[in-house]
Order: sequence, then structure tokens, then C-alpha cells
Amino acid sequence: MKCAIILAGCGVYDGAEIHESVMLLYALSLKNAEYEIFAPNIDQFHVVDHLSGQVTVEKRNVLTEAARIARGKICDLKNLNPEKFDAIILPGGFGVAKNLCDFAFKSENMTVLPELEMILKTAHSLGKPIGAMCISPVILAKIFPHAKLTIGNDTDTTKALENMGAIHTKTNQGQVVIDAEHKFVTTPCYMLDASLAQIGQGAAALVDAVQHLIK
Amino acid sequence: MKCAIILAGCGVYDGAEIHESVMLLYALSLKNAEYEIFAPNIDQFHVVDHLSGQVTVEKRNVLTEAARIARGKICDLKNLNPEKFDAIILPGGFGVAKNLCDFAFKSENMTVLPELEMILKTAHSLGKPIGAMCISPVILAKIFPHAKLTIGNDTDTTKALENMGAIHTKTNQGQVVIDAEHKFVTTPCYMLDASLAQIGQGAAALVDAVQHLIK
Repeated sequence: MKCAIILAGCGVYDGAEIHESVMLLYALSLKNAEYEIFAPNIDQFHVVDHLSGQVTVEKRNVLTEAARIARGKICDLKNLNPEKFDAIILPGGFGVAKNLCDFAFKSENMTVLPELEMILKTAHSLGKPIGAMCISPVILAKIFPHAKLTIGNDTDTTKALENMGAIHTKTNQGQVVIDAEHKFVTTPCYMLDASLAQIGQGAAALVDAVQHLIK
Repeated sequence: MKCAIILAGCGVYDGAEIHESVMLLYALSLKNAEYEIFAPNIDQFHVVDHLSGQVTVEKRNVLTEAARIARGKICDLKNLNPEKFDAIILPGGFGVAKNLCDFAFKSENMTVLPELEMILKTAHSLGKPIGAMCISPVILAKIFPHAKLTIGNDTDTTKALENMGAIHTKTNQGQVVIDAEHKFVTTPCYMLDASLAQIGQGAAALVDAVQHLIK
């Protein structure tokens, strides 16, 4: 199994959620699965001071910051060729909803970063499974009508997903929803109040389910 | 078990190593152990672009950046009272050797951040175990003569440790060295070429050994 992982920066409030990203890579490593990490070479929507929670005046690049999680082994998202991978997986974090799409600001009227949308559509048309953690399922809901997925149990987000045409299933910590028709696997992670052990459980369950969907 | 975790920023080249930090927190979470996370409220020695590997002109604060790994739940190191914890654990990363001490620049002639040195000496005098991952054992070697520890198998670092009076044992991925007399536990992590699964194995073994040393 060789997976492409797409990160949205480095940090829960303005980038990729670090725990979810690392637990995903750990679940893959435990299976001796290969992975390559990608992120878009764009400015972050903004930078949040994770101590104060306040937006700062800094500018940071999504690819450069995501490289922190990847220990430098990362490629520009524009070079992701879905043909070369068995599956694509997106961890969560506000960066997904701010940098990879604009769900954080426009809810169901969101748009997806064009290069990401193209990659996911190509992967899907090739029959490759797509895994999405935490808030990332909003991207699947937007691009693929009638996707079956989960973001946990948040009422407003569920409503927005359903307004985009998705079929939502409530889940608890560590659970996954499998859309066998679309080959999508989703898990709520920190969309629910969760321990890091539960994040690990969800990541492992997602990786398992993705592996079973690979042709 | 309640542990204090000390981070040196967020990112292998200028801060705390993210994988080691998260795998440590995960190992604690699996045991339902409590933990609080601390970092010094000081500027990073420098900021490294983790994509290019080059030093940038930016300024970042160790506490503010470490808050990314802690999801905002972090305290200034100066407020760490060792009496309130059963053990203290330091993940690795170049930030340890650049922000928490200056081993990266002065090798065995290094000095330790005074507030950290005081905390570790107090913890040790109270009989609390100290865990140190990756490069962090250099701090134990400097403060506590004749500490038994490991940083893996790097010849230059081993020599520097021995010149500071430490007793070094070579280790492989996932192994720990236990200094029962000092109550120190060390594990090499990314001081060796390692998979993330092996980092997880080392973190879990370290947490196990620390737990056994608690009175």
C-alpha cells in the first residue's frame, strides 16, 4: 500500500492538526505502508498564535509549515499524481477549512482549492480510495454528491454537509464510516472531544478500512 | 501517573521533534496518564525553513510554537513545579540542543537554560524520574555527573557525552537505557535512522520504564 497524504500546514488552528497527522503516519508505519506527503505551495489564510488563540500579522506558507510535520520530506501538491498511489488521505485541522477550502468562512457555499479538487476527482475516477479525518470530509461532500460520511455529531457542520448533498452518519470517538460505493473512509477525530489514544484508534481504523478498499 | 512534558518548540530543525512529542503523548494517553505540557517563554535560537533546510530571518517564540503541538494547552516553563508531578519527560529535536541548551554549538562545553537546570535538579532531589528522548540526554549528562544513558550510536555525540562524565550505552531503535540510581530513562529515537513505528516503540518503552521508577 502506498498512500499520498495531504497536509494543510502545521497546527490545529491554522494548519494541519498535528496529532491527527502523526497518528495517521504512525498507523501507516505500523503496516509498513509507504507514504509520500504533499501540501499546496500557497500562503496560509492566516497565522494563529496557538498560545493566545489570536490571529497574528505573520505570513506563513502551507507547504513550508507542513514540512515540519514531514521532517522536510514533502512535495508540492501540484506534483501529486494519483496514478502513482493506492489511496489518498487527508488529516484534519482548521487549515483544511481555511487553506484547502473555505468552509470555515462560507460553510456549504464553500469552494475547494482547484488543484486539490482536480487531484481528488482524478483519484476517484481511477477507483482509488480517499480517507478524510476530522473536518476534511467537507471537501468530499462538496466535490462528490451523495457521499456517505461522518464528522462526528456537530449539528451545524452536519447540516452544512447535508445541504451539500452528503449523507451523514453520527459517530463516536475512534469510529469510521465507510462509503463502499465511493470508496471513502471518514473518522471524526478532534471534531469530538477526544483523547490522543482515541485519535490513534480512529487513524488506525481509517487506515485499515482504506486498505480493504484498495483494488 | 502525572507527567510534566517539556517542549523546545515545534519542528525537528529548530524546535521539538514533532513525531517524538506526539508519540510520547500518545504513550501516556494509552495508559490514561495525566500530563501537562511546558515550554520556555523565550525566542527560538533561530527559525529553520523545514522545506529548504535554510535559516530564515523570522523570529518565533519557543512557548508559542510549542503550543501548536499542545493544541494551546501549555504553560510557561517557569511555572513548572516538580513537586506536582511524578516524572518529567523531554522529547528531542534540534530545539533541545539550540533552545534548551547550546549543545548544538558548544558540544561538551554547553550550558543549560537556567530555569530548566533548576527544575531538573529539584525534580531529581525529590526522587522523581526523568525521561529524555533523542538528543535530550545531553542535558542530563551536563547536569548530573556519571549519568548512565543512551543517544543511540553516534560517535561524536557519544564522545561529547563521555567527556561530560556520562556513561553511554549503545542502543538500537526502540530500546531504552535505565539508570536506576539516578532514575533516568533514555531512548535514541531519531538519533538513529528510524521508522515512526520505532519512534512509537521507543516512546512506549520509555513511558513504561519511567512509570516503574516512580515511588
